[in-house]
Amino acid sequence: MKKLLDDPADAVVDSLTGFGLAHADVVEVHADPVHVTRAGGPVAGKVGLVSGGGSGHEPLHAGFVGDGMLDAAVPGAVFTSPTPDQILPAIQAADAGAGVLTIVKNYTGDVLNFETAVELAEAEGVEVASVLVNDDVAVEDSLYTAGRRGVAGTVLVEKIAGAAAVRGDDLAGVAAVAERVVANVRSMGVALTACTVPHVGRPSFDLGEDEVEIGIGIHGEPGRHRVAMAPAAEIARSLLDPVADDLGLADGERVLLLVNGMGGTPLSELYVVYGRARRLLTERGVTVSRSLVGNYVTSLEMQGASVTVLRLDDELQELWDAPVRTAALHW
Amino acid sequence: MKKLLDDPADAVVDSLTGFGLAHADVVEVHADPVHVTRAGGPVAGKVGLVSGGGSGHEPLHAGFVGDGMLDAAVPGAVFTSPTPDQILPAIQAADAGAGVLTIVKNYTGDVLNFETAVELAEAEGVEVASVLVNDDVAVEDSLYTAGRRGVAGTVLVEKIAGAAAVRGDDLAGVAAVAERVVANVRSMGVALTACTVPHVGRPSFDLGEDEVEIGIGIHGEPGRHRVAMAPAAEIARSLLDPVADDLGLADGERVLLLVNGMGGTPLSELYVVYGRARRLLTERGVTVSRSLVGNYVTSLEMQGASVTVLRLDDELQELWDAPVRTAALHW
Repeated sequence: MKKLLDDPADAVVDSLTGFGLAHADVVEVHADPVHVTRAGGPVAGKVGLVSGGGSGHEPLHAGFVGDGMLDAAVPGAVFTSPTPDQILPAIQAADAGAGVLTIVKNYTGDVLNFETAVELAEAEGVEVASVLVNDDVAVEDSLYTAGRRGVAGTVLVEKIAGAAAVRGDDLAGVAAVAERVVANVRSMGVALTACTVPHVGRPSFDLGEDEVEIGIGIHGEPGRHRVAMAPAAEIARSLLDPVADDLGLADGERVLLLVNGMGGTPLSELYVVYGRARRLLTERGVTVSRSLVGNYVTSLEMQGASVTVLRLDDELQELWDAPVRTAALHW
Repeated sequence: MKKLLDDPADAVVDSLTGFGLAHADVVEVHADPVHVTRAGGPVAGKVGLVSGGGSGHEPLHAGFVGDGMLDAAVPGAVFTSPTPDQILPAIQAADAGAGVLTIVKNYTGDVLNFETAVELAEAEGVEVASVLVNDDVAVEDSLYTAGRRGVAGTVLVEKIAGAAAVRGDDLAGVAAVAERVVANVRSMGVALTACTVPHVGRPSFDLGEDEVEIGIGIHGEPGRHRVAMAPAAEIARSLLDPVADDLGLADGERVLLLVNGMGGTPLSELYVVYGRARRLLTERGVTVSRSLVGNYVTSLEMQGASVTVLRLDDELQELWDAPVRTAALHW
C-alpha cells in the first residue's frame, strides 16, 4: 500500500486537520468528538443542516459545510458510521432555534447511529427532522443496507435543501424539499479498480485486468455484475439506462446530470462519460439543464465513476443555482 | 489498460466535447483546429490571456477559461504540445484590441510552437507578449526542457494575471504581474505510481511496490531520485524544503500554499500533505495566508502530489482573491 499518510490509524484526523487549516474561513474542525461546523456558528433563525457518514468519500461531507449547504458534518472512521456521541454535538452546534434537518445515507449503521443521536438531541429540546438518501438503483439490499444505498445523489440533496434553509423555509419545509430531491434522484456506478482502506492495507476486493464491476457501491461492496472492460459509451449506457428507467424519465423533461468520479479517475475521462450519458438523455428527449462533473462522493483512490440524474422543476433548479460557499462547491 | 474512453485516439476530442457541453455557460469548444474560448468572446478593452500545452493535465488549461482567468486555451494531444495552427486562432479569438499575453509552460515543444504562432499573430497585427512558467525546482534540465519545467505554479500565474487583466492593466502591466508571479513561485512533486497515455496503452515508467519518485515532472519524466515509500511528513519535507530554500523564504514572509494532486490521489491524502507542509512553513516563521488543495495540474491517473509555494504581497493576494468564474476555479 502506497498512500500519502503518516500513521494509517490517524488518517482521518490528520486529513481533517489539514482540511481545517486550509479552509479556516469556511469551517471549524473539532477534535473530541470529531465533527466539523460552519465557521462563525449557525445562522440565527435558519434551519440547521447536518450530515455525516464514514470517511473515505471526500469531499463528502465536510467539504460541503458552509454558506448555503451544511451547518455541520460528522466524519466517521474510513467506511465506518460516525458514533452518536459525535453526531449529537454536531446537531447541537447546527441548531439556531429553528430546528435541524439530518441528511443520512441509507446504511444500517448510519441510520441507527443518527437515530440515537436525534433522540438524545430531542431530549435536550432540539427539534429534528431527518431525510434518508437512497439513490443507488444498482441493488435493493446489500452488505450494509436494507433497501437502496445512498450515494452521489447525497450532494444534490445537501445543496438544494441547504438553499431552501437559506431561503427561510421552516423545518417541515426544508425537509419536504429534501424529500422531493430524494424522490427524484437516482444513481449508478462502475468500478475499474478496488480501493484500499488505510488501516487494512490491502485492496477491498479483486478485479481482473480486463474486468469492471457495474453497480458498485461507494465502499466497494458488490454491484450487479462483473463484465469485461468496455468502451465508455457502453459503460455510460449500462449506468444511465437503469437510472433513467427507474426515474421513469419522459420525453420533454429536464434534469441535472452529475458524473461523479470515485477518486482515482482523471477528470478527462469523467467528461467522456458525461458526453456519452448526455447523448443518451438527449436521445430520450430529455434536456440536461444543469451539470456537475468531478470527484464529489469518492471511494478513496478507486478508479470508476457514477452517473446521477435529478429530475428538475423550476423550484429545484432555482435552489440549485442559489449561491453556495463551501470548500468543495462554490458559486 | 482500463480507462473510461472509447477510441483512445479520440480521447482528447471526446473529453473536450463533454467538457464543452457541461460548461456551455463558460466556454466554447472549437473542433478544427482544436481550441477553447471564453463563451461570449473576448471582453472589449481587456488584455486577452491564452495558455495551452499537452492534454492529460486536466483541468489545466481549458478548465481555467472564463471570467477572471484565461480567454482561450489550446489543448494538444496527450503530453504533446499544441501546434501553431491551433494556437493562432486562440490568440486571435482572445484579442479585443488591447493585445494578448500568452502563458507558456517551459517545455521545448510548447515554447517553439507558441513562438511560431505569436509571430503569425503579430504579422496579422495582434500585439502579443509572452511569459514562460518554470516553477519546478526538481531538475535544471530534463527530457523535455532546457531549464526548469513549468508545473502547478502555472495555475497561480493564470489566475493572478487574469485578475490584473480584468482590473484594466495594459499588456505590459499584465505581463509584469505574470512575471512577478513566475519569479516568486516554486514547486516540486512526487509520484507514487506511473500513468498510462491512452494511445500508448502501458505505463510510462515502472515504480516498485515500495518506491516513490521525488521530483517527478507532470509527464512522468524522471525526478531527482527514487526513494523508499515514506510517511507523509517526510515526503512533505522532501518537497517543501527545496521549494522554500530555492525561494529564499525568510521568517515573517507570507505565502500561498498549493497542494496539487496528480489525478489519482484521494483528496483526503492531499489534505494530510497540506497539513504537513504548512507545519514546516510555520516552523520557518512563514505565514500561509492563502491555500489551494485539489487536482489542478494532473498527470492522467498518476498517484502523487506536488507542493507549490507563492510568495505573496498585498497586490498579489488581492489579485488572487478577485472573482473568478471558470469550470475548475470559481469564487
